[in-house]
Amino acid sequence: MNIHILTLFPDMFPAYLNESILKKAQAMGQLTVRLHNIRDYTTDKHHVTDEPPFGGGGGMVLKPEPIFTAVESLVADLQSQQEMEGVPVILMSPQGRPFTQTIAQELAGQERLVLLCGRYEGVDERVREHLVTDEISIGDYVLTGGELAALVIVDAVTRLLPGVLGAEGAAEMDSHATGLLEGPHFTKPADFRGWVVPDVLRSGHAANVARWRREESLRRTWQRRPDMLLTAVLTEEDRWFLGQLAQESVAIGD
Amino acid sequence: MNIHILTLFPDMFPAYLNESILKKAQAMGQLTVRLHNIRDYTTDKHHVTDEPPFGGGGGMVLKPEPIFTAVESLVADLQSQQEMEGVPVILMSPQGRPFTQTIAQELAGQERLVLLCGRYEGVDERVREHLVTDEISIGDYVLTGGELAALVIVDAVTRLLPGVLGAEGAAEMDSHATGLLEGPHFTKPADFRGWVVPDVLRSGHAANVARWRREESLRRTWQRRPDMLLTAVLTEEDRWFLGQLAQESVAIGD
Repeated sequence: MNIHILTLFPDMFPAYLNESILKKAQAMGQLTVRLHNIRDYTTDKHHVTDEPPFGGGGGMVLKPEPIFTAVESLVADLQSQQEMEGVPVILMSPQGRPFTQTIAQELAGQERLVLLCGRYEGVDERVREHLVTDEISIGDYVLTGGELAALVIVDAVTRLLPGVLGAEGAAEMDSHATGLLEGPHFTKPADFRGWVVPDVLRSGHAANVARWRREESLRRTWQRRPDMLLTAVLTEEDRWFLGQLAQESVAIGD
Repeated sequence: MNIHILTLFPDMFPAYLNESILKKAQAMGQLTVRLHNIRDYTTDKHHVTDEPPFGGGGGMVLKPEPIFTAVESLVADLQSQQEMEGVPVILMSPQGRPFTQTIAQELAGQERLVLLCGRYEGVDERVREHLVTDEISIGDYVLTGGELAALVIVDAVTRLLPGVLGAEGAAEMDSHATGLLEGPHFTKPADFRGWVVPDVLRSGHAANVARWRREESLRRTWQRRPDMLLTAVLTEEDRWFLGQLAQESVAIGD
């Protein structure tokens, strides 16, 4: 996976990219990240990248020229290496489609991604209309720029690449990967201040552990994010258990 | 606003904290961020912070002791300064309540926040049950740890603090701040490759500009995130405009 990030703040990235799983993925050769400073693509003396919006109203808007120049020169460069066929050019934007684990899986299948980080009040609309191929939002909140969103995408996508998690984790069991929230995890000590680990987890009975985990995952999702049950893939046994939860909550007037 | 972040990777943070708006907020004295390495609160020789989960299944789980010790020593320290009354201790977790602009506003009213970053397969359940006061998720996707989530919260909250955005932006008009997506922005040049800025934005007629922006904001929300219209605060005029959009989309078989 080869990810190009276009930003006004390239210095924000290396500290995150050079630790933990992302560091490992780069060392393995599974991930390369190239940072491109949009300011390097300005052609005027003062390297202006933003201007006030037409119509007034405060804030600054990223100008179209440096962004078009940056993306087009990147595309030309990749095309000359015959590597740019259909590569997604994704604008990080609060107006984009909401990022989910399903989109992370979709992007993990790409060989290359170009991530464009907006800043300030946003980017000139012509970038949206005529340059990018996709817009993604990481959530319904307002950030100062697209840089954290780009890092979120790099992180979520990289851990899905073959071999990256290795023995350190099982990506397919994580919250959201299954369409459910994960249930509780416990580790040593078995007794911490009198709060003890559930017996079943220390029983050594794999089938019982698996069933307990599935039920706790269903229970947590039912309690905290019942909306997710609408789209999760559920077995007959899961549905029976959810029916039990529903009866219990009626009985206790929950 | 005084934010304490507990993490196994404190080096991931300064590069982001020391640029742009967050740098400015710290220089203004509106924001202080203290990073605490959970590993510094281990008491064993090898500074072990994680162990395999009871019940097996791969992945590593953060042990309870160093996290309890870290949070409790922080709390004791703040209490001795009489500054810890009711401070939120928030676990960054995919199982938490989904972060929204409303929660950002709620947190921006606090004097202090403690943000706890999980890692690997998660944290021991006893941290969840007996230590933290809140759990927040930044979205329905899987990240390697809570560090990016903590930065998202720091960023979203800081820009709401008094005076931080100043003339650089109007936080109350941003996407999600109004309950709607923002409409298009345009800046110079007025004509870029034949794509021209809408006349109304160059008309100098403030009321027409305001109405156009409101309608474009409604249109974009209607097209991309109709779910947001269910909770947005709408005027009679807004409802009439949405009625027009609905009729148009029926007419063109949208």
